[in-house]
Amino acid sequence: MRIGIVAPSSRFSEEAAERVGAIAAVRFPAVELVFHPQCFLSHGHFAGSDNDRGHAFLEYANDPAFDAIWFARGGYGACRIAGTAIGRLGRAAREKAYLGYSDSGYLLAGLHRAGFPDVAHGPMPQDAMREDGEAAIVRALSWLVQRSPSALEPGLTAGVPHAAFNITVFGLLLGTPLEPDLGGHVLLLEEVAEHMYRIDRAMFHIASNPVARRIAGIRLGRCSEVPANDPAFGEDEEAVVRFWCNRAGINWLGRADIGHDSANKVVPFGA
Amino acid sequence: MRIGIVAPSSRFSEEAAERVGAIAAVRFPAVELVFHPQCFLSHGHFAGSDNDRGHAFLEYANDPAFDAIWFARGGYGACRIAGTAIGRLGRAAREKAYLGYSDSGYLLAGLHRAGFPDVAHGPMPQDAMREDGEAAIVRALSWLVQRSPSALEPGLTAGVPHAAFNITVFGLLLGTPLEPDLGGHVLLLEEVAEHMYRIDRAMFHIASNPVARRIAGIRLGRCSEVPANDPAFGEDEEAVVRFWCNRAGINWLGRADIGHDSANKVVPFGA
Repeated sequence: MRIGIVAPSSRFSEEAAERVGAIAAVRFPAVELVFHPQCFLSHGHFAGSDNDRGHAFLEYANDPAFDAIWFARGGYGACRIAGTAIGRLGRAAREKAYLGYSDSGYLLAGLHRAGFPDVAHGPMPQDAMREDGEAAIVRALSWLVQRSPSALEPGLTAGVPHAAFNITVFGLLLGTPLEPDLGGHVLLLEEVAEHMYRIDRAMFHIASNPVARRIAGIRLGRCSEVPANDPAFGEDEEAVVRFWCNRAGINWLGRADIGHDSANKVVPFGA
Repeated sequence: MRIGIVAPSSRFSEEAAERVGAIAAVRFPAVELVFHPQCFLSHGHFAGSDNDRGHAFLEYANDPAFDAIWFARGGYGACRIAGTAIGRLGRAAREKAYLGYSDSGYLLAGLHRAGFPDVAHGPMPQDAMREDGEAAIVRALSWLVQRSPSALEPGLTAGVPHAAFNITVFGLLLGTPLEPDLGGHVLLLEEVAEHMYRIDRAMFHIASNPVARRIAGIRLGRCSEVPANDPAFGEDEEAVVRFWCNRAGINWLGRADIGHDSANKVVPFGA
């Protein structure tokens, strides 16, 4: 098993790569993790220029010697390369697994839209830097390497298609060439570090878009590190999402075990 | 001339109302400003509940005794009431002027979509609290009362339709029932207090949406109070907007004299 790691979004660190490598060496000694040198570039906000990030993704995704592509971290930047890069993927790319979350959602969305069969929302190498980060890395690898059922979000229903996204990322890919067809999908959403009024506003956008009429329902993951609202917003994230589900006639299907934390479970896209 | 003031978004203050009243009494003594009592309600984040805000807007907009509706301030909350309220406006509402910006953009958009002929982006009563706020209030009233050409954004082209929005607000109304038909419009955009990576991300969303193929071009107003990016983003707001215009084949038409400040000029929607 050979896993290629690229960084389509924000800057990544050698330190995080070393931690991931050390965990994998002990827990998955047969797995080869290959960090593309692009992971350690920096260009303003990003892990290298748009060209560098796009080319690194294409190089590894199109290389038949890799079984999976693992996105190093989120932050911001994948939307700048996703559309062009996905249009240049070949057959070897289609046979791979892809794993990431947060800003990687632009790529997960575009790959799912393009019919790539093995796309999943779950932990990334950067999660090694979190408290209890080892659990997240082991979960991600146990999914990529063994398809371990224990890595999966526990509320997934067999035979029903799912997709999972960060709320802000999902809202901002609607109407773009990255928007996947989520007809019949259960949509799992999570958020981090957004004020409650921004979560409410993003849910207005999602619930008021045509996509909302086609999904089977919404399950809400964790919304963590929500900055204090001034004045207090008056509703928590569950009340907000239930409000917009009710407004738009979307099925509210309860909570989900995903989020920007080390407990983030894996959600494979599709059925 | 009788101007009704309602607050569809965040909480408003008696202090701001008094300042506006004092300025108007001196500069426009023949104008009657009527603050709806709803302006001074509070309900969590908002100037009253969704019901209170929606009903106040409907009451004044549908009342033939008012010549104009002036939105008290932005913040957040208009998207929660705009769709339902606009659907209940009658003939008296259609004959009025409407003025606001920022979060009021949800209402401006929905009114323009619904064919209301006298909708404009410009200063609000809350601007009285800014440094040099009197200039903003006088400009707004000189537009509402006298249609003073000096109140207008100086780059508007006669015979060409325009619209103006906050970048974040505009992005989050795309694809919703509030999205106006901006075919052939010059779109003026401004932003406040958003990180540069968020401006870039919102511009990805706008430039990648079908609306971008129909507009005549974009002019960029001021992006103020941009929080420091860590690391430095590497591009300023003009470079960001030009980048996305270039990517999407949108005409870049230069800068515009609008923004979250007391110099914010008036942009009437439509031709």
